[in-house]
Amino acid sequence: MEERDIRRLLERLQAGRVSVPGALERLRHLPSEDLGFAKIDHHRALRQGFAEVIFGRGKTPQQVAAIVRKMLRPKSSQHNILITRADERIYRAVRRASAKAKFYPLAGAIAIRRNHIIAGKGTILTLSAGTSDIPVAEEAAVTAKIMGNRVETVYDVGVAGLHRLMEHREKLTSARVIICVAGMEGALPSVVAGLVAVPVIAVPTSTGYGASFGGLTALLAMLNSCASNISVVNIDNGFGAGCVASVINRL
Amino acid sequence: MEERDIRRLLERLQAGRVSVPGALERLRHLPSEDLGFAKIDHHRALRQGFAEVIFGRGKTPQQVAAIVRKMLRPKSSQHNILITRADERIYRAVRRASAKAKFYPLAGAIAIRRNHIIAGKGTILTLSAGTSDIPVAEEAAVTAKIMGNRVETVYDVGVAGLHRLMEHREKLTSARVIICVAGMEGALPSVVAGLVAVPVIAVPTSTGYGASFGGLTALLAMLNSCASNISVVNIDNGFGAGCVASVINRL
Amino acid sequence: MEERDIRRLLERLQAGRVSVPGALERLRHLPSEDLGFAKIDHHRALRQGFAEVIFGRGKTPQQVAAIVRKMLRPKSSQHNILITRADERIYRAVRRASAKAKFYPLAGAIAIRRNHIIAGKGTILTLSAGTSDIPVAEEAAVTAKIMGNRVETVYDVGVAGLHRLMEHREKLTSARVIICVAGMEGALPSVVAGLVAVPVIAVPTSTGYGASFGGLTALLAMLNSCASNISVVNIDNGFGAGCVASVINRL
Amino acid sequence: MEERDIRRLLERLQAGRVSVPGALERLRHLPSEDLGFAKIDHHRALRQGFAEVIFGRGKTPQQVAAIVRKMLRPKSSQHNILITRADERIYRAVRRASAKAKFYPLAGAIAIRRNHIIAGKGTILTLSAGTSDIPVAEEAAVTAKIMGNRVETVYDVGVAGLHRLMEHREKLTSARVIICVAGMEGALPSVVAGLVAVPVIAVPTSTGYGASFGGLTALLAMLNSCASNISVVNIDNGFGAGCVASVINRL
Amino acid sequence: MEERDIRRLLERLQAGRVSVPGALERLRHLPSEDLGFAKIDHHRALRQGFAEVIFGRGKTPQQVAAIVRKMLRPKSSQHNILITRADERIYRAVRRASAKAKFYPLAGAIAIRRNHIIAGKGTILTLSAGTSDIPVAEEAAVTAKIMGNRVETVYDVGVAGLHRLMEHREKLTSARVIICVAGMEGALPSVVAGLVAVPVIAVPTSTGYGASFGGLTALLAMLNSCASNISVVNIDNGFGAGCVASVINRL
Amino acid sequence: MEERDIRRLLERLQAGRVSVPGALERLRHLPSEDLGFAKIDHHRALRQGFAEVIFGRGKTPQQVAAIVRKMLRPKSSQHNILITRADERIYRAVRRASAKAKFYPLAGAIAIRRNHIIAGKGTILTLSAGTSDIPVAEEAAVTAKIMGNRVETVYDVGVAGLHRLMEHREKLTSARVIICVAGMEGALPSVVAGLVAVPVIAVPTSTGYGASFGGLTALLAMLNSCASNISVVNIDNGFGAGCVASVINRL
Amino acid sequence: MEERDIRRLLERLQAGRVSVPGALERLRHLPSEDLGFAKIDHHRALRQGFAEVIFGRGKTPQQVAAIVRKMLRPKSSQHNILITRADERIYRAVRRASAKAKFYPLAGAIAIRRNHIIAGKGTILTLSAGTSDIPVAEEAAVTAKIMGNRVETVYDVGVAGLHRLMEHREKLTSARVIICVAGMEGALPSVVAGLVAVPVIAVPTSTGYGASFGGLTALLAMLNSCASNISVVNIDNGFGAGCVASVINRL
Amino acid sequence: MEERDIRRLLERLQAGRVSVPGALERLRHLPSEDLGFAKIDHHRALRQGFAEVIFGRGKTPQQVAAIVRKMLRPKSSQHNILITRADERIYRAVRRASAKAKFYPLAGAIAIRRNHIIAGKGTILTLSAGTSDIPVAEEAAVTAKIMGNRVETVYDVGVAGLHRLMEHREKLTSARVIICVAGMEGALPSVVAGLVAVPVIAVPTSTGYGASFGGLTALLAMLNSCASNISVVNIDNGFGAGCVASVINRL
Repeated sequence: MEERDIRRLLERLQAGRVSVPGALERLRHLPSEDLGFAKIDHHRALRQGFAEVIFGRGKTPQQVAAIVRKMLRPKSSQHNILITRADERIYRAVRRASAKAKFYPLAGAIAIRRNHIIAGKGTILTLSAGTSDIPVAEEAAVTAKIMGNRVETVYDVGVAGLHRLMEHREKLTSARVIICVAGMEGALPSVVAGLVAVPVIAVPTSTGYGASFGGLTALLAMLNSCASNISVVNIDNGFGAGCVASVINRL
Repeated sequence: MEERDIRRLLERLQAGRVSVPGALERLRHLPSEDLGFAKIDHHRALRQGFAEVIFGRGKTPQQVAAIVRKMLRPKSSQHNILITRADERIYRAVRRASAKAKFYPLAGAIAIRRNHIIAGKGTILTLSAGTSDIPVAEEAAVTAKIMGNRVETVYDVGVAGLHRLMEHREKLTSARVIICVAGMEGALPSVVAGLVAVPVIAVPTSTGYGASFGGLTALLAMLNSCASNISVVNIDNGFGAGCVASVINRL
Repeated sequence: MEERDIRRLLERLQAGRVSVPGALERLRHLPSEDLGFAKIDHHRALRQGFAEVIFGRGKTPQQVAAIVRKMLRPKSSQHNILITRADERIYRAVRRASAKAKFYPLAGAIAIRRNHIIAGKGTILTLSAGTSDIPVAEEAAVTAKIMGNRVETVYDVGVAGLHRLMEHREKLTSARVIICVAGMEGALPSVVAGLVAVPVIAVPTSTGYGASFGGLTALLAMLNSCASNISVVNIDNGFGAGCVASVINRL
Repeated sequence: MEERDIRRLLERLQAGRVSVPGALERLRHLPSEDLGFAKIDHHRALRQGFAEVIFGRGKTPQQVAAIVRKMLRPKSSQHNILITRADERIYRAVRRASAKAKFYPLAGAIAIRRNHIIAGKGTILTLSAGTSDIPVAEEAAVTAKIMGNRVETVYDVGVAGLHRLMEHREKLTSARVIICVAGMEGALPSVVAGLVAVPVIAVPTSTGYGASFGGLTALLAMLNSCASNISVVNIDNGFGAGCVASVINRL
Repeated sequence: MEERDIRRLLERLQAGRVSVPGALERLRHLPSEDLGFAKIDHHRALRQGFAEVIFGRGKTPQQVAAIVRKMLRPKSSQHNILITRADERIYRAVRRASAKAKFYPLAGAIAIRRNHIIAGKGTILTLSAGTSDIPVAEEAAVTAKIMGNRVETVYDVGVAGLHRLMEHREKLTSARVIICVAGMEGALPSVVAGLVAVPVIAVPTSTGYGASFGGLTALLAMLNSCASNISVVNIDNGFGAGCVASVINRL
Repeated sequence: MEERDIRRLLERLQAGRVSVPGALERLRHLPSEDLGFAKIDHHRALRQGFAEVIFGRGKTPQQVAAIVRKMLRPKSSQHNILITRADERIYRAVRRASAKAKFYPLAGAIAIRRNHIIAGKGTILTLSAGTSDIPVAEEAAVTAKIMGNRVETVYDVGVAGLHRLMEHREKLTSARVIICVAGMEGALPSVVAGLVAVPVIAVPTSTGYGASFGGLTALLAMLNSCASNISVVNIDNGFGAGCVASVINRL
Repeated sequence: MEERDIRRLLERLQAGRVSVPGALERLRHLPSEDLGFAKIDHHRALRQGFAEVIFGRGKTPQQVAAIVRKMLRPKSSQHNILITRADERIYRAVRRASAKAKFYPLAGAIAIRRNHIIAGKGTILTLSAGTSDIPVAEEAAVTAKIMGNRVETVYDVGVAGLHRLMEHREKLTSARVIICVAGMEGALPSVVAGLVAVPVIAVPTSTGYGASFGGLTALLAMLNSCASNISVVNIDNGFGAGCVASVINRL
Repeated sequence: MEERDIRRLLERLQAGRVSVPGALERLRHLPSEDLGFAKIDHHRALRQGFAEVIFGRGKTPQQVAAIVRKMLRPKSSQHNILITRADERIYRAVRRASAKAKFYPLAGAIAIRRNHIIAGKGTILTLSAGTSDIPVAEEAAVTAKIMGNRVETVYDVGVAGLHRLMEHREKLTSARVIICVAGMEGALPSVVAGLVAVPVIAVPTSTGYGASFGGLTALLAMLNSCASNISVVNIDNGFGAGCVASVINRL
């Protein structure tokens, strides 16, 4: 029941075609979301310009392609479509649904761009500490791009070789939001956050072995950062980091 | 060694009062931060307008008061001063150092305001799930205020009584950044983040007992949120949440 | 805004004293809970006849007494009042607010009975494995009583002395819901659940030392029970067990 | 040794064909369960009408089929048979043992219905937070059905999109027992339990990644729920939830 | 109902003073433990000659003394009495109940010996790795003594100074059961078990700091011992180790 | 260097064929184990009659067979040979090395019996709580048998069906050592230990799912047993339990 | 920008071809690493003579070979090249890039020696407790060798058979640095460190099962060693241990 | 029994005053350490020149003073004495035993210097990340000093303010061993180790709150360092770090 329906009900009440108790009854059974939640939800979609997102893992190529086809149907909608945790096989199925589909093998992501609007006000910089953190960093970068942001990436700038990070000092200081991806001891966000005055989104990765405990160590380290402009997302959650950075960059 | 000193060195070289090798030598031993890091650091201070912060726990009232006095000396500086994890005894000592000191008992914080500049562009909304989460929420709120933000607070809106949260829907939708403080199952940020399109900073608290494991449960729950505009800070880290929100709100 | 207010609005629309857009506007800003949530909430209160509950820990005797006084004010309400995690000092303060207040030292609970309605259809049996589990078992028992149930208790029937449990076999088979409180290895619920055909609410306690890890061991053991009519609440959560048992016993 | 045997023994004693010491001796070595436990066990079977259950994982299709055949032999018994954690290969083997066998691929369960008695007094509602929680929810639903309950299911109603849950408010309020299946942050049970007055059985699932730790996060969150009509079963234990709900619904 | 009662029942049946159905009825309601469990329990007491044991922690001196008095009443019983986790204050109260009470301050134990029977066939040797493990080792030693064993103790023989352990090689090889108490890395049992051919009971202690995690590290290390004649009891459970050793030594 | 060699050295000194400094020198470089450790080690072998043991996991069939061949060479030795964590492929390779090799598929063990001496004084009873615990129980049973013990086994006697355990009460009371294997909530050892007066070796298994955490739950439960004649070995360590029981049974 | 460039800038300032503000500007944007970090980095390379290292896991044979080819290009460089966590397939690819490549299958390492300089002053002794710890010990040994050290290895000297360790006492006392590799209870480093006066690098391994928790138990045990000349590296980090030992041995 | 005694025994054998069996017997019972272990132990003492160390925690001032007095008795010994985890009260007691006793309140240590020999070849640099890490850093520094090393300290150089660390670059590059103390995210050792070519001993501290888990986070981070010249000691183990650094610095 949309606003139009409520308006009609009130008009019928005004016109005497429905009694007050009758109108009251209909209103009482009105699902709350029609008045409140759904609207918020709608507004969110409008304001955020978020891409439609499909979590690929655990779905068959056919299932993903079917969801994509359904999303493509409302032609007027111009939202970009992002499929995360995808692979070559999913890509081939999606490719048949849309010729615009593009595969990012490093990120394990597929994107279908229906618009190239830049909604983010500044640049989102994505850093990775090691080479094995790149897939997660790429997922974050692709996510942020599809959601309408300018994105720069600098990889392999771990803290045990500070000079490599320092070479990119200008990129650090010109970014509006920084995503910092690191496994093992997860120290990069602390060092980076100490060098800038913008929000740093820290993403622990499950790289490493032994006492890295699947990224738990990096996660805990980031939560305990001695820098105060850091917040953290889940292990390997490049997508989440891209979203949070995107939401911030649109402010 | 500041820029002024380097300039002077170059002038002396130009004037022939120091040789090229001599100047080179002095430059070589120049602490790198004078050229690079410190400047970044300085810029950060300027841009952020961050308050000077003292972590009160583990310090005697005398130690805190001494640090405060040192901070107050450069009269030209107009940074606000914030002391977190403080108590009545620390307050009495600080009060003697500055009559402007104000104690926030709920937050366990002391503030000395030297400016009332509002640097944040929107409102930061601080929510707490339960009444026992209020101290952490207050620490976040006081921090954000001292750092130059308009702050609103809504407390005791846990997810097992959704209607209490819904009463404040307008505050939710008008905030530019939301800080969401919750212990126990830590579910509030997920619900809130689903209702808004702005960044939500989730703060787990150590309230609860048994399998709350000192806030670990709430922390893990927040990191696993099914909403994508959430990032998380350490358990009980109201100060960090206030900082992150503040950095975002200045963008 | 209650139903009465909505009715009035509709009458004014019918009477032509407010326009359709005006009514629509007022309805749009209607807090959703007035239509939906609050009603559910109200119904819940009516159906459940739940006692009003105050979590005593972390509150001063004065604070608890003040809340009690506020609860007592609506004289028409006949809900019982339960204060959990309370002590002698809180009791003395509450006693001044209501002469009906009764202290259960073992349970650490205070109850003010305003009705003695029995809403539960059968008997709730509360078992404890060891003597040190009794406080949690008592909290469960007092909670269930105050919420209108017949309650029986059998204590110190740990699994290493099965004959003690077997002596009470008739109570086991005549109960409608069983609350089973155990620390250490938490084995009692499995044994009990194998002997009965009714729901068993398992409550781990933080008794024990060393590798009992504050009740974690008992909690995990109960979650892994090989019996299939067991569900579990938080460590030391006698109150929660009493509530769940009460909700079931009213069905 | 059944009651019949004991009666016969006593008759022989009465008839003088056995001495008192001889009768005493036989009684002394009487397995205790014949007098006590087994009877309870028997009563349980009668009252509960529980399906016979086979845990399929770790068994070969041949082993499962053999157990099924043995269960089918006592033709008079009309218990339903449920095989959990089963797959297509097990199904094919069981199908040869009974043409009535039906495979529920989503639930990974096989059922052989020998009766369609409805023993549960109300409806059991099974909710899932995400699409990846559906297998566990289906296992719960199939279990509850086979045990003689009316079951309804509502899937994909996670707390970050409250309006989707609210659309089903009527189902929520008309259920007698609710099973709530959720992974990740495990927040759904808290929200649901706040909206109803019936017991909510919370089932954490191992979906998610990173800091979801195989369902541990959801489990802990549910144990710490701020709602008081929730109890919890093991991670992914849809079967257990179906059993507990069934036991409650027969009360 | 004891055997005597059953005999009487059978005699009355034989004598025709009770009917078969009447006797059957009485037998049916016979608590199973009268026939089975209690007897086993009785036998256990007879065979084990276990001391009566009171866990002192969490009990007031008055409570402990009252239990002791009750235990002392059946004068014919000659079981020794052991109170673990006791202190000076408890001792003073117990002393008033029995002049035989003896306090072992290191062990935190009180013993009332009513017999000095040696039931153990060999010597139980109690080793401790460090000086701070001595209280737990003493608890084990006192327990074993009170339960009727010859006990020897060797303390402060940690593995980082093997020569200290080697000085006592003869005691190692002449013991029938060895209790090995160690905190920190918990390595002593592995080394000792490699030197002997008798069972080694390993007791982890909560001594140490940092990553000793309250004895968890020592516990885990002992469970992973590369020696195969080791079994483990709970952290700080000197009493349990003494019991297990005692049960073995009576074989 | 064995005792014989030392004796010869002393005789040569006595005979004047070696000087005091020369003898001293040889003695000084004497590996300590020749005097001390090796002897102990040797004695252990003699007294224990332990089988030679090969841990099969991680070794190729060829490697295992090679070790077996080497063990078989000293024909005079009559130690049995046990290979744990073995499979069909290893068995085929070992079979070629010794026609006496026998495969125990349930236990995943291979045994080569070279003697059938019964060194254990009583019977070792191996219990398992569930059917999926049988492989670990079988490993324990085979180990104990190969080490010269009479072994009895009773499987599938979990605590949720006490009557099944009670049927075997006579076996319980006649065993000299009991091995108790259980996964999930690990409650069986507590119940069993309460029924007997002999040592109970508890073996947690990694069966179960979700919050069983690979056997950790069962392990912790067993360590916290309220019975005092229980000690515990590592998760799935059937071999270790068999060894400990064997060492005890030889006393 | 190297020192040469700065010199040139200063000369141009001296020569009047650049103004003071111009020089200042250039210096201000001078990447700090050109003056500071890079130089340190260079010195480190010179002094350490560290091999170039490639972490093979997660890289394709082609990727590893490509990196190797790039490293081999600067012919003047004589650093050795080490590839860790490599396998036969990687080896075959690397072999085509350099005929000097040598595969160490036990260590899972490939080395290309371009120099045989011995930079370490003494011998590094690598010990392993069990046979399954050998791969990690070998990784440590190969790493230390390639970095220019004399290395000795002694394997299978676990603490449950002290005599095997004692046989190698001379190697223990003659080593300058000891690497001690152990899984399970991780006790070897404590025993070894008590016998020597040199630094012991402890390496936990992930061997074992059950409560070894992938090496966590060994790691924790080593961190809690009662010996004081021990420090620890990550689980299975043979490479790290080889590096630390190498850095120490060059002092 | 020392070498002298063995020599005498052999001479008596040679002189015919003892028989071969008699000598053999005496040798057999010779404590192994007299031949082997003790010697090693003695050599260690000579070479290491380690201070005698007393762990103060858990000891009364009287106990500590008594141990000190005993250590002071052998006047010829010139070992320094170190008491760790001590306080003012212990100091006053020790002061009465030796006027040379000096209290280091920050380190919580007491030292009695009997020699000022510098045995370490270079300088040990102790760094701390935060001000609250200073006590542990001081314990390390005092330990290293008492063991005969030149020690330098630089405090409060956390990674979120790199310029503070860089100011001390010369100290970093001139140290022979570096001790790096850090709590919270434990990132300092990684950054420092990347700047130097000497061994870095990382010491995690229990400072921090929430997800720092008493230093576990810092410990795990250090174990996962991406730098390869780092090894780690236990949480808060400043003493251990001082020892390890000292052992290395004597090489």
